[in-house]
Amino acid sequence: MKTRKKRSRNPGSADWRVVEGGVTAPQGYLASGVSAGIKKKGLDLAVVFSSQPASAAGVFTLNRVQAAPVLLSKENLKSSRGRVRAILINSGCANACTGEQGIKDSLISTRCLASHLKVDPAQILVASTGVIGSFLPVPKVLKGISAAVSALNSRGGSAAVRAIMTTDTCEKTIAVEGRVAGKTVRIGGMAKGAGMIHPNMATMLAFVTTDVQVPPRELGKFLRRVADRTFNCLTVDGDTSTNDTVFALANGASNFAVIDGRSSSFFERGLEMVCEELAKSIARDGEGATKFVEILVQGATDFEAARKIAKTIANSPLVKTALYGEELNWGRILCAVGYSGIPFDPERILLNLNGIPVFRAGAPVNSARARAEKAIKCHDLLIEVDLSDGRASARVWTCDLSHKYVDINASYIS
Amino acid sequence: MKTRKKRSRNPGSADWRVVEGGVTAPQGYLASGVSAGIKKKGLDLAVVFSSQPASAAGVFTLNRVQAAPVLLSKENLKSSRGRVRAILINSGCANACTGEQGIKDSLISTRCLASHLKVDPAQILVASTGVIGSFLPVPKVLKGISAAVSALNSRGGSAAVRAIMTTDTCEKTIAVEGRVAGKTVRIGGMAKGAGMIHPNMATMLAFVTTDVQVPPRELGKFLRRVADRTFNCLTVDGDTSTNDTVFALANGASNFAVIDGRSSSFFERGLEMVCEELAKSIARDGEGATKFVEILVQGATDFEAARKIAKTIANSPLVKTALYGEELNWGRILCAVGYSGIPFDPERILLNLNGIPVFRAGAPVNSARARAEKAIKCHDLLIEVDLSDGRASARVWTCDLSHKYVDINASYIS
Repeated sequence: MKTRKKRSRNPGSADWRVVEGGVTAPQGYLASGVSAGIKKKGLDLAVVFSSQPASAAGVFTLNRVQAAPVLLSKENLKSSRGRVRAILINSGCANACTGEQGIKDSLISTRCLASHLKVDPAQILVASTGVIGSFLPVPKVLKGISAAVSALNSRGGSAAVRAIMTTDTCEKTIAVEGRVAGKTVRIGGMAKGAGMIHPNMATMLAFVTTDVQVPPRELGKFLRRVADRTFNCLTVDGDTSTNDTVFALANGASNFAVIDGRSSSFFERGLEMVCEELAKSIARDGEGATKFVEILVQGATDFEAARKIAKTIANSPLVKTALYGEELNWGRILCAVGYSGIPFDPERILLNLNGIPVFRAGAPVNSARARAEKAIKCHDLLIEVDLSDGRASARVWTCDLSHKYVDINASYIS
Repeated sequence: MKTRKKRSRNPGSADWRVVEGGVTAPQGYLASGVSAGIKKKGLDLAVVFSSQPASAAGVFTLNRVQAAPVLLSKENLKSSRGRVRAILINSGCANACTGEQGIKDSLISTRCLASHLKVDPAQILVASTGVIGSFLPVPKVLKGISAAVSALNSRGGSAAVRAIMTTDTCEKTIAVEGRVAGKTVRIGGMAKGAGMIHPNMATMLAFVTTDVQVPPRELGKFLRRVADRTFNCLTVDGDTSTNDTVFALANGASNFAVIDGRSSSFFERGLEMVCEELAKSIARDGEGATKFVEILVQGATDFEAARKIAKTIANSPLVKTALYGEELNWGRILCAVGYSGIPFDPERILLNLNGIPVFRAGAPVNSARARAEKAIKCHDLLIEVDLSDGRASARVWTCDLSHKYVDINASYIS
């Protein structure tokens, strides 16, 4: 793509290395996942507990229809002044579009957990995922909470991530460890996909724990900045959910404090590594996905414009079905760029597929067509668009649109 | 839906009745459709000819990537001052993203047709549909033009509409006749669907002929107004094509002139009847469609807001797959309303399916659930959303998202 230098996309790999353990990798966290009977089968209720009060921050869906757990968590983040002890998560029921009753049901659940943990109910965050418009089966949830509290343990990250899955086909979890100023610090994360994924703030459910020491307000700034570069660069189907939530907890158990520019960028690199990995794993496991697709738009006037174009490509059903069919129908990509609403000069646009040029100077590059037709059969695809108009760029991750996506979503509640 | 009165949606039924003949129903038009070998098989080249100079108007795609025929037609509309003799249409190749060569190819084609018809090349409009990024097979096109001119006849509307089809499974054509001031006037139309359909100005290809007498400038105003209420209220997959075009020709052969308020509203009702029918038939025959879906958003503050919400619902892959699966997963509809970007109060929203209430006062209407579950099995679905916020409304037509849509679009060029 001309000579423009690509920004390094594996931030912090020098500082941070991947470790086992997910959200219980950092010191001072316990977690569990149990089967409460909310779903027909499998684990469906998770608790993440910090043994000491943790700074907490959240980013939430921008959907105007917000689920009860979103509304309650926002309130609790305020009333606890960002000092939190636990997160309660259930799959199988989104508790969205459930009115007053929905709020009451979330409230009863958090009070129950608070009483088991002997903490203030305002120090509990809550998130739900599943069918919209159904009420929480409260007696089952309360019984599940009791079981989950008994099951809490320092290696519970693995059960917790299984309990938050819906149509996910694999667990999405990562943890990283860094050594800094003689201290070992860790960041863990888990997330669920896999449909109704179109981040407009945070997307889907994701939970990050860390043992660094950082005030709630600062933690919120880190989280918003990183979420915008990671979760908000992800789309499966363009549907922004009613329940999208990302929570971060920082309990300070490592005694490493984020206080200056150097410790801040160290922490931000680790946080971005965790969030980027979770975001990519959601795209990779998008409902019915057979391809993992990275879309890199370069040469734009600003980041927002670049991301808008990348997302328009990523959400085009015609682009997505062509990728599924492994057809080099690149005209659909240019067509999507054209209706993205961002101005550009069609004569100057460059389009590459996995590094092979397919369109430049207003016309197809037919000499490379055979190579491009071969490249489109790869599982991992990189679509590069260069507008030759500015210096900003953005990447978006997505997947293709397959028969299986239709299967899954045509019979979701049956 | 409360007591708000619905606007009558069959405009002009008192003035206008449906007749046979499509674009050759009005006086003074000849048409033909031939097989030029652009597609692997079937008719693929159409000509519509007016035996006297006709006022002409066009509305075009807002996609920034505009196909060669779109660019050339815009130029010809200007240089002919809206006086046109013929339209040349081909399927099988969109002649989009083809640079200078594409423009030359369209130009050669229009010159060839003009020479056969002994008219000025600037009086030819041109439209193409098919694969983006392929060049027109010019020798085949020129041979096809010659055959099409020989085949021109006053009942050629039926062959012409077949020649503009791509993945369409049925012909989309209509003509209406009205009696006014002792004169018989007619309006005919034809259109093609069926994918890459998301009108943002006009959508897809549609052609309207009439024998009323109306200056080009006025004809343009009528066409833009009516297209905004019909073609622009249609979506199949949210993809705005590079080639979208609607042309209207008015040759005055009926001697009925549109001169005052009364004749204007008479003509506009007929034009809307034709365009609405064409738009609906495109939704009904959307790629892989098994359902025809009308979405009516009421109680909005203005038409644009209402249409934005209706289109967001119409383009949600999750809503579309749920309708395909005949699942009453109405939470996905509310979720789409929520991320449409239009402000509203979730507590006041009402949602009906085929007249049956499913959500109101912030909560599900469970008492009617059994009836609604039955209703969703109908072929024709009406989704009504009332925001209870204003007096404006909008309707949008769409279809579901089926396995067959994926089939068609995963192997479009193979």
